[in-house]
Formats: sequence, C-alpha cells, structure tokens
Amino acid sequence: MFVPGLIERKRDGGALQADEWRELVAAFQAGQVPDYQMAALLMAVFFRGMTREETAALLDAMVGSGSRLDFGHLGVPVIDKHSTGGVGDKVSLVLAPLAAACGLAVPMMSGRGLGHTGGTLDKLESIPGFRTGLSLDETRTQVERIGVAMIGQTPEIAPVDKRLYAMRDVTATVECVPLIACSIMSKKLAEGLDGLVLDVKQGSGAFITDAALSLELAQTMIRLGEDRGCPTVALLTAMDRPLGRACGNALETEEAIMALRGEGPEDVVEETIALAVEMVLLGRTGGLADWRTDRAEIGPRRTGVPSNRRAGPDRAAVEGEVREALSGGKAAEKFQQVIEAQGGDPAVVEDPSLLPQAKEVEVYYAPKGGTIQRVEPRIIGRAIIEMGGGRARADDEVDPTVGFVITARPGQPVHTSEPVASIFARDRAGIELGRRALDRAIVIGEGKAEALPLVSARVTAQGIETLA
Amino acid sequence: MFVPGLIERKRDGGALQADEWRELVAAFQAGQVPDYQMAALLMAVFFRGMTREETAALLDAMVGSGSRLDFGHLGVPVIDKHSTGGVGDKVSLVLAPLAAACGLAVPMMSGRGLGHTGGTLDKLESIPGFRTGLSLDETRTQVERIGVAMIGQTPEIAPVDKRLYAMRDVTATVECVPLIACSIMSKKLAEGLDGLVLDVKQGSGAFITDAALSLELAQTMIRLGEDRGCPTVALLTAMDRPLGRACGNALETEEAIMALRGEGPEDVVEETIALAVEMVLLGRTGGLADWRTDRAEIGPRRTGVPSNRRAGPDRAAVEGEVREALSGGKAAEKFQQVIEAQGGDPAVVEDPSLLPQAKEVEVYYAPKGGTIQRVEPRIIGRAIIEMGGGRARADDEVDPTVGFVITARPGQPVHTSEPVASIFARDRAGIELGRRALDRAIVIGEGKAEALPLVSARVTAQGIETLA
Repeated sequence: MFVPGLIERKRDGGALQADEWRELVAAFQAGQVPDYQMAALLMAVFFRGMTREETAALLDAMVGSGSRLDFGHLGVPVIDKHSTGGVGDKVSLVLAPLAAACGLAVPMMSGRGLGHTGGTLDKLESIPGFRTGLSLDETRTQVERIGVAMIGQTPEIAPVDKRLYAMRDVTATVECVPLIACSIMSKKLAEGLDGLVLDVKQGSGAFITDAALSLELAQTMIRLGEDRGCPTVALLTAMDRPLGRACGNALETEEAIMALRGEGPEDVVEETIALAVEMVLLGRTGGLADWRTDRAEIGPRRTGVPSNRRAGPDRAAVEGEVREALSGGKAAEKFQQVIEAQGGDPAVVEDPSLLPQAKEVEVYYAPKGGTIQRVEPRIIGRAIIEMGGGRARADDEVDPTVGFVITARPGQPVHTSEPVASIFARDRAGIELGRRALDRAIVIGEGKAEALPLVSARVTAQGIETLA
Repeated sequence: MFVPGLIERKRDGGALQADEWRELVAAFQAGQVPDYQMAALLMAVFFRGMTREETAALLDAMVGSGSRLDFGHLGVPVIDKHSTGGVGDKVSLVLAPLAAACGLAVPMMSGRGLGHTGGTLDKLESIPGFRTGLSLDETRTQVERIGVAMIGQTPEIAPVDKRLYAMRDVTATVECVPLIACSIMSKKLAEGLDGLVLDVKQGSGAFITDAALSLELAQTMIRLGEDRGCPTVALLTAMDRPLGRACGNALETEEAIMALRGEGPEDVVEETIALAVEMVLLGRTGGLADWRTDRAEIGPRRTGVPSNRRAGPDRAAVEGEVREALSGGKAAEKFQQVIEAQGGDPAVVEDPSLLPQAKEVEVYYAPKGGTIQRVEPRIIGRAIIEMGGGRARADDEVDPTVGFVITARPGQPVHTSEPVASIFARDRAGIELGRRALDRAIVIGEGKAEALPLVSARVTAQGIETLA
C-alpha cells in the first residue's frame, strides 16, 4: 500500500477500494501511517466526498478497529438512540430509562460537550458520584441486570474513530457527511444493536445547518445501519431554539428529572416520547426473529428485509404504553436504578435540589416588548462554555452549575421588563457574560416568528414521511 | 492564532492574511503547530490555491525561517540558475563554472534526484572525493575566493521549506504552483542573489506536464523574485526527451566535462549557453547600481525597475563572450577549481575515465527501422532508479555508474539493428531492466516526429518572448 498514491487518487476525484480503506485504517491504527497523511487524505475527502462503497468500507474498518458488544443471549431487543447534538438537549437522560422501562435493552454510549453543544456525559456527571466511565464488562453486566447503562466511549469501542475524530476536530474536516456518518455509526454498530433511532437536528443550532445536508446525513446513516443488519430510523427535529427551558449541565439534569416525574416542558416530553415510540417499534417489529441471524458479522445483510417488518404492532398502542411508562413513574424508577448502579445518589430524583447549585442567580427581563422572534442556540451554548460550564480545551474542568433557564419561546408575546430567563453563574462576571449573551440570543421584534416544527419528518430506508 | 479556523477559512475559499501566514510558519517551525494541521492546510491550498499576497507572505515566512547569504561586499553580481528538473539535465555542472568564468559570483544550491529526475548533487558526487555538504561559512569563503560553489541546501537555509517539502512529498500536495514557487524561491532568495535565471521544463518529462501550468509557475516565480529585488528571467526548455545523450550520474558528469571541453552534444551546449547569456545579462544590466539598495531586506521593491534596465549590453556581444569562455577553456579550468576546492579529484576534467565505471555495458540496437518518434524521459529516469542509480527511499545508496547513453533523437531515421543506445549497469539483471526500459522509451514509427523546440520562450516580468 503506497499511501501518497491513495491520497493522490482521492485528491483527483477517484475512489479507494474497500480493501484499501481496510488496510489504510489498520496501518493507521498500528501507527504505520502518520497523522499528517491521514489529515491530508481527510481534507481531500472533504473536497471530493466518498462513494457509497467507500463510506461502507471505512465504517467497517472503524468498527473492526475495536471490540463489539453482543447482547444476543438476553433475548431482548437492544436499541439505542443517537442525537447529532444541540443546545438544551437532555432527551437521553429521559429516554434511556424510559426505553428500558418499556422492555428494551439500552446500552447507551454518549459523548461530552462538543463545539457549542452540551454532552450527555457532562450532564449525568452533575449528579453527585455518577460514574460514566464504565468498562465494557461493567456495561455488559449492568445492561443484563437493569436493562440500561449510560456510558462514554470505552477505549475498546472503535478506537480509530476516537483518534480520527480528535484530528478532524483540529483540521477543519468535521463538516463532512460521510465522515460524520462513519464516526457516529462506528460507535453505534459496535454496541451490537438490533435497531437505532437517530435524532437529526435541523436549524441554526445544529452542527449541520443546511437542511438538505442534514437529510443527506440521516439517509447516509440509515443506509449504513440497514446494510449492516441494524434497522435504523431518523426523526428530524428542531434545533433553531434550545430544547426545553434549561441549558447547562445540572440545570438540564434537573429538567430531565422533572420530565421523568411528568412535569417536564412539553417539547422535551413530546420529543422524548416520539423517539421512544420509534425505539419500541423497532424493538417489536424489527423483532429478534427477523434479523437476529443477520447481524452475527458486520457486513452487508445476507437476507432481504421482510416487507412487513414495520407493519407489526400498532403505533398508537405503543405510544400509549410509552406515555404510561413515563407518567406512571416506571421510567423515573429506572433512572434511579441507573444512578444507583453507576455510583450516583438516586435521591436526586426525589429531590433535585441535591444537584449542585449555582452561586449566583439572576433574573433576566425582556429589554423591550414585542414578540420573541428567535432564541439562538449557538449563542446560548457558547455563553455556557465562556461561563465555565463547557470546555474551550479538552482538559478544561466543567462547572455543572452554570447555565440558563429560558422561558421565552419563539412566537411568545412579551412586555418590557417581563422576566424571560434566569442566569446561573459562578460569580458576577459570569452573570454579566450571561446577560450579554441573552441580549444577543433573545431577539424580540414585531410580527409572526418563524420556527421549525418540533419533529418535522420521519426518515426510513423506505422514504421520508413528513410529520408537520 | 486559532489554527483550525485558518484551515477552515482556506478550505472554504478565503485567504489568510500575511501576518497569519507569518505566525503560522513561525509556530510550525517552533513545533507548536503539528504536522497534521499543516498537512490539512496544504491540501486545502491544493484545492483552493493562494492569492498573490498569500504566496508572497508564505515565501517571506519561509525565507525568514533561516539565514541569508550576503555577497554585497564582493562588488560582483551574484547570479544563480534553477531548473524545475528533468532527465539528462547536466546543465548546472557546465553552467556554474561557465558563469563564474564570465565574472559572476555563483553560490549554486542544488538538490538530489527527485521522482524520475536526476539531481546535481548526485552527479557531482560521482567525482571521487567531491563534497557537496559545505557549511554556509565554507560556501561564503569559496565564492569569495573562486567565484563559485556547488552545494546542497544547508540546514540554515529555509529550514521550514525542507520540512514542508518532505511532508508534501508524502501527502500528494507537491503539484501545486504556489507551493512549488515558494519552495524554489525561498532557497534562491536566501542565497542573497542579484538575479536569478529559471530553466522551466516543458513536456512529458517535466514535473508539470501541462504547458499552461508550467508557464504559470514561471510567471509566479518571476513575480516573487522581482517583487523582492531579485530580477528573474525564465527560459522554457524542452523536456519531452532527455537532454543530451547521457542519463545517469557519472555518465552525465562525463558528458558535462565533454561540454566544458567543447565536445558536448549540441543541445546541452546550446541550452547552457542560452542560460549563461541570461545570467550574464542579468549581472550586467541588473547592475549593482540599479537595485543593490533594494535587496537589503526581503520585501517589496522600494523603487521601480529602471525602464532601460535590460537595454544595457549587447546580447550578441555577451553571447560571444560566453562562447569564448567555454571554447577557450576558462570554464573547464573554473570547474577544476571547484572540484579541487570541494575535495574532489580535478584530474577527471582531463581524464573522465577516472570517474567510476559500470561493471556491465551493452549496446542497444533499434528493434525495427523507421523514424525515432519519441524518447520518453520518465521511463528512462525511472529505469535508472530501478537499476540502482537513484533512490526509491530517501536513505537509498546511489550507484553513480548506472544509466544510459542514448544517441537516438526524435526525428532521426534508423535502420533495424542500428545501435541507438548503450546500457550501463551493475549486473546482468540491470542490463535486462535497462533493455526493457529502452524497448518502451524509444518509440520508432513512420512519419515526422513531434518535438518541442530546445528553448521555446523567454519569460520576464515584461512578458513572453517566443524564441522558436
């Protein structure tokens, strides 16, 4: 394998063969291909894209770089969710226990804050004692015992993805659909899933703000999953404003707990239920009988997908079950089990005031009257980082207490000096940073506000179903 | 300076500011910017190009990364030549002593074999004892004493170029006009020149085979040189066949010696004279009085170029002087001085059989009759490497004895079994490699052969003068 020749071919618009991607990734993992060659290749990929075959080959090589979980012996459908990332998105904290309460096995692997977005691990770690760094063995045991674990990427899972991602992050090669798709799917497929639900964010606060590109990303991931025996469904959801009211780690954990107790903001609850319904439907209809035999090995499906695969159970009935699991307290109870299993204090579910509290809190009042036109997620997300609630560098400590609770929603009329948000900070300087961010993020004007529907479409291998 | 932001801007078609290039190169040199970020940036440059201002800024940063020679005290014009590289191109070995014999100071810095092309350093080192690794101090002293030194890139000259070039070589980012121009000009400007003549090769054996791109390269380098107080002229020369008859290190050195003794092949002699005339004209008309004051610092020229700058001496008279210096033996004598000064055996000029001789020599006969249509330089150059006369890896030993003497020229009629070349090899396997290469390289057919004029154009800051 002559690496400069491979880079040159990609640079000039050609494609690498599947075995070339496999050899390249293996050599990169073994330290035989230096980072600078990989960086040049990834930049060429940014400009030239990848064919369907190339994307599949890279994905397989990335999954193959590490271990894979296998929950086949449980006899329970193993389903996970992945979100492309947003501001105020605490859905995972509600969804994982909810899905487990509905009988699924959920080995949920999440990330930390990235760019302007928050990360599930940082939110969970605001719970005193909560440990996200489980080993693969601990994860396996916990999923067997209580049906759900909420962990970070372990060193055994797609280790090449971890190295590639760190490099892409500092070489301006992140915003590339096939590379994003491979990164996400390599981790998910290594979990040994029977099905995957994707929450693909759209709007100004998403990583990919272009609607066509975010749809392309969803479709690419669906194809990759389906081709590898992991039925995959995506919901396109709104990230043109923060999700829910709380933004910031402990504040979001508190809001997630409220949602588990049936007191969450409507958008958080409805988006969580929509995703949970897809997970349960995948678990029921995807059915162990249908494709369990197909996923023994990563690779193209050996049999066709049964045409009636998703015809099975009644969607309305499943939705009823899911709502019941949430409102009846089963999901909250499951979350307590997770917290306890992972070393945290389960009492936070009864008493969220046990979560760390900000030193300084101040109410923010609308500087003028009118209609809320926009609440810009990026400005909010970046302000939280500046206030100490996220990382500017990989080794920064995160202060879980800082953030915002924003009650203003696009389309809502407000009067001058009406309270529309609260700022949570470490000190007065943080309050000031927060105030200036809200001045820019909350746009008040006249006339009707434009906002994306909460869940605008359901995308499957069969097509796109518009929901709003 | 946020490097990922700079990469992203270039990736998206924007330009970096001059001070951003300066800071970036300084940080790269200091080890604060990792190779993989630079590799990603260079690939983005490959796709997006660089503005005139960016190219100039990168060049200045590269020159500024090391030391600069200064021969101002000599009171003699300091002129060098650079070739973009070819097969059989032994011009430097004849030209450097010839130009010095005409009264110029020539601190000639050359390279080693690169890709399919040979390198002046490898050719010189075929002379027993010849040492090309002079220090900057040794170079300075030798140029002061005998007017010429023939050396390799010292660690003090444009060190960032050396690192960047090594990386570009293995990341498929070599073929990029602004990057090539900066690499060449950074070394040449660090020599403290009063003028530079470029030999820009065209045709299938050149690095840049596209005629428009090679002209763009010439014009980019001329602009960079002129803007920095170093008048620069380019000749576009033929590399659709090897230059001269000899290809291979010792064989080419022998042919260069024959040319210095007035017995060289016509094309080698005429191309050398054309380049020497340009060097002497630059030395005379560029004149110390005209621009010496402009080149105290690297940077844009502070005064305009006098409109009569190149009107000075009579071109025909200069050509007469140059021919006399060659035929009268002054150039050969100067070459002997160079060899002696750099530790070699000057007797090789009287007796070229003192050069190392190949173990196996075999004549190659035309396999059929007709007209020589082509002699492909790339096939010849690559065969020499395979036969041990070049490097496949940077640390390979070079056998100076191997190569070819090819008497067949495009357009020449041949009979079946007429001798058209000789193969020089280490062993029978080398002879066989050489024979197979000649079978492919020497194309015999019917009809008129197409060949580029030896020197097709003279390019200056004022425009392009077609010469053939």
